Amino acid sequence: MSDKNKSFLTHLECSKCGERYSADIVQQLCECGKPLLARYDLERAKKELKKDLLIERENTLWRYRELLPVLKDENVISLGEGMTPLVKCDKTSKEMKINKLYIKDEGIVPTGTFKARGAAVGVSKAKELGVETLAMPTNGNAGSAWSLYSARAGMNSVIIMPEDAPKITRTECALSGSKTYLIDGLISDAGKVVKNSIDKYKWFDASTLKEPYRIEGKKTMGYEICEQMNWEVPDVIVYPTGGGVGIIGIYKALNELREIGWIGSKMPKLIVAQAEGCKPIVDAWEKGLDESEFYENSKTIAFGINVPKGLGDFIVLEAVYKTEGAAVSVNDDEILEGMKIIAKNEGMFVCPEGACAMMAAKKLRESNFIKETDSVVILNTGAGIKYPNAIEVEIPYVEKDGIVSI
Amino acid sequence: MSDKNKSFLTHLECSKCGERYSADIVQQLCECGKPLLARYDLERAKKELKKDLLIERENTLWRYRELLPVLKDENVISLGEGMTPLVKCDKTSKEMKINKLYIKDEGIVPTGTFKARGAAVGVSKAKELGVETLAMPTNGNAGSAWSLYSARAGMNSVIIMPEDAPKITRTECALSGSKTYLIDGLISDAGKVVKNSIDKYKWFDASTLKEPYRIEGKKTMGYEICEQMNWEVPDVIVYPTGGGVGIIGIYKALNELREIGWIGSKMPKLIVAQAEGCKPIVDAWEKGLDESEFYENSKTIAFGINVPKGLGDFIVLEAVYKTEGAAVSVNDDEILEGMKIIAKNEGMFVCPEGACAMMAAKKLRESNFIKETDSVVILNTGAGIKYPNAIEVEIPYVEKDGIVSI
Repeated sequence: MSDKNKSFLTHLECSKCGERYSADIVQQLCECGKPLLARYDLERAKKELKKDLLIERENTLWRYRELLPVLKDENVISLGEGMTPLVKCDKTSKEMKINKLYIKDEGIVPTGTFKARGAAVGVSKAKELGVETLAMPTNGNAGSAWSLYSARAGMNSVIIMPEDAPKITRTECALSGSKTYLIDGLISDAGKVVKNSIDKYKWFDASTLKEPYRIEGKKTMGYEICEQMNWEVPDVIVYPTGGGVGIIGIYKALNELREIGWIGSKMPKLIVAQAEGCKPIVDAWEKGLDESEFYENSKTIAFGINVPKGLGDFIVLEAVYKTEGAAVSVNDDEILEGMKIIAKNEGMFVCPEGACAMMAAKKLRESNFIKETDSVVILNTGAGIKYPNAIEVEIPYVEKDGIVSI
Repeated sequence: MSDKNKSFLTHLECSKCGERYSADIVQQLCECGKPLLARYDLERAKKELKKDLLIERENTLWRYRELLPVLKDENVISLGEGMTPLVKCDKTSKEMKINKLYIKDEGIVPTGTFKARGAAVGVSKAKELGVETLAMPTNGNAGSAWSLYSARAGMNSVIIMPEDAPKITRTECALSGSKTYLIDGLISDAGKVVKNSIDKYKWFDASTLKEPYRIEGKKTMGYEICEQMNWEVPDVIVYPTGGGVGIIGIYKALNELREIGWIGSKMPKLIVAQAEGCKPIVDAWEKGLDESEFYENSKTIAFGINVPKGLGDFIVLEAVYKTEGAAVSVNDDEILEGMKIIAKNEGMFVCPEGACAMMAAKKLRESNFIKETDSVVILNTGAGIKYPNAIEVEIPYVEKDGIVSI
């Protein structure tokens, strides 16, 4: 393996029609309008890559170097992202009567959400392909991750976000030197401005799934879950699903690991967790559809999964069907309740999306879809501290020089 | 080494008078009023512990198991804290004309600040010693870390914080089930209520340096810096200093590593960085004093280092003197400027304290105290996202269906 080309990347392939594209130049969507996926020489990987080589590797997602799309080390833009903790949740496990319950804590990454994974790999590959300026719409967290990684790469970024996106994400974007704009509208309105601007200025479109490499960063969550569980896959993985890139990534990772023989043939059941106020995938799954329908007037406190229709919805649904998974929604009250349960029981301040996934698991346990003997991994996609206003608490005062009462 | 006793802990020793105490029971301060430090059988460690054993160990601070005070695995309360990224800062390095410049990013831990290290080890050891309820005053971040780890341990916690402590830390405390109170006053007023309450209820006092094990968690920053630099210590380590537990911990770690032979005799110069509005250590160091004087009317945006006089100030000063370090202050405008520089250059949204440390290094480079050939490690003690109001940005609007201008 040459130092200059550590990746086993071969080409890009359309997720829908199978058309092949070169991975040597900038690509966006397939001509058919669907997302492209990165493909690797997995036969070579099966022969050459042994799990043992990971032992001495750095503790970031770049430990899976050969199965990531960046060819040259010099293009890797890293802030130490990945290998997030897989935290055992013993108290909740007992309460929910699930033998083994874990939270994969994606709050413990640069920028505080799993978006860092997609940004690290996406920006690195964009740099390698010569991109000078990228643009994207965001509800907040993706924008902050991409703008900060772009700054590190010395790349220009243009970020458009709804005016009610979290203030802290505005700050991150602006501080990084990104050209940041607010819009009096939704992320779809921001998307239109991005499209208009890209048409004019020929910038790179870094919108969700409109470029092929963000998924590659996010799939490492799947690699890590398997590695951290000593290559015995869990029975169930629950993912809070908005655009779905995370669950698509995990599904892709599991398939790749099977192909190279690092895991056996057993697949975990992949579970889509959505908020009651925005559940296009749940509705589609319940009807047995291959695609979701646009979810009108969506609304939830878990703004990271407020996505009325994702470009990759058909791959999300495929992942659920093929793994005999399920799609479940919980309401905002349940989400808030979940945040409290997880903080009290496990000492983790998770984001509403993470709580949504936990409460979805609870429902599936109650319906006996999840069995007592199952091992279950919940994805918490971000730190609770990025959502300072999600939950209100009442705190009493104590007098100066007073004493607290018990 | 028995499974039941993995630690080489032997006893506690007063940091001032040298008096010895048993580590088998709950201890607070020495009778002389000064903090106790944990001591280990370092001769045995020198014989039995080889660096190589770390390679296969888990990627948390618990990899240094033998040099931590918790005897039994069952008492370890962990959320995956430690082994934070050591991020190379090439652009700032070039700008500042320092050959090798790194930020050790303590924002990438549970609860988003380095306080998690102290809480993980402190709570674990408290659990081992049978503590049922702990109490502490806090400016915010320590309280959130200790309350969440206490929740995980199934231990009660009582947290008193000034009403102007960051709202997000209130939320963390309250959600964890901690008995949290606000006070119309300063952290010193909160301290008084803690003292009153402890006197009455016989709770464990987890205030800074009033228990010996928080330092043990924080010292792992020092172990990690050495391990991540392949056991070649940097020339300079810059630490944003409030109560000083972090820098005391790093100093202790370096001494322990020297004693067990994992590093050579060379010590990094330890640099105290403080804010202009609260610089008791800087003043004491400039006067050559062994202790600091109470800093009246302290004020800075870097609230984590707004500590007018720390209980361990004499150890901080010893660390600076013995390593031929220095103590430097920077003002709040410089701190804000530092946050911008680091975000733009390195893609990291650091906390004001981290920016303070970076700007202190800049000053020391300008005065040629830090040489161009030096390798310098800056500690960023927390994620910028925990300080949503530290910095204000102005962001323009773009029209719906518009196009951005360049």
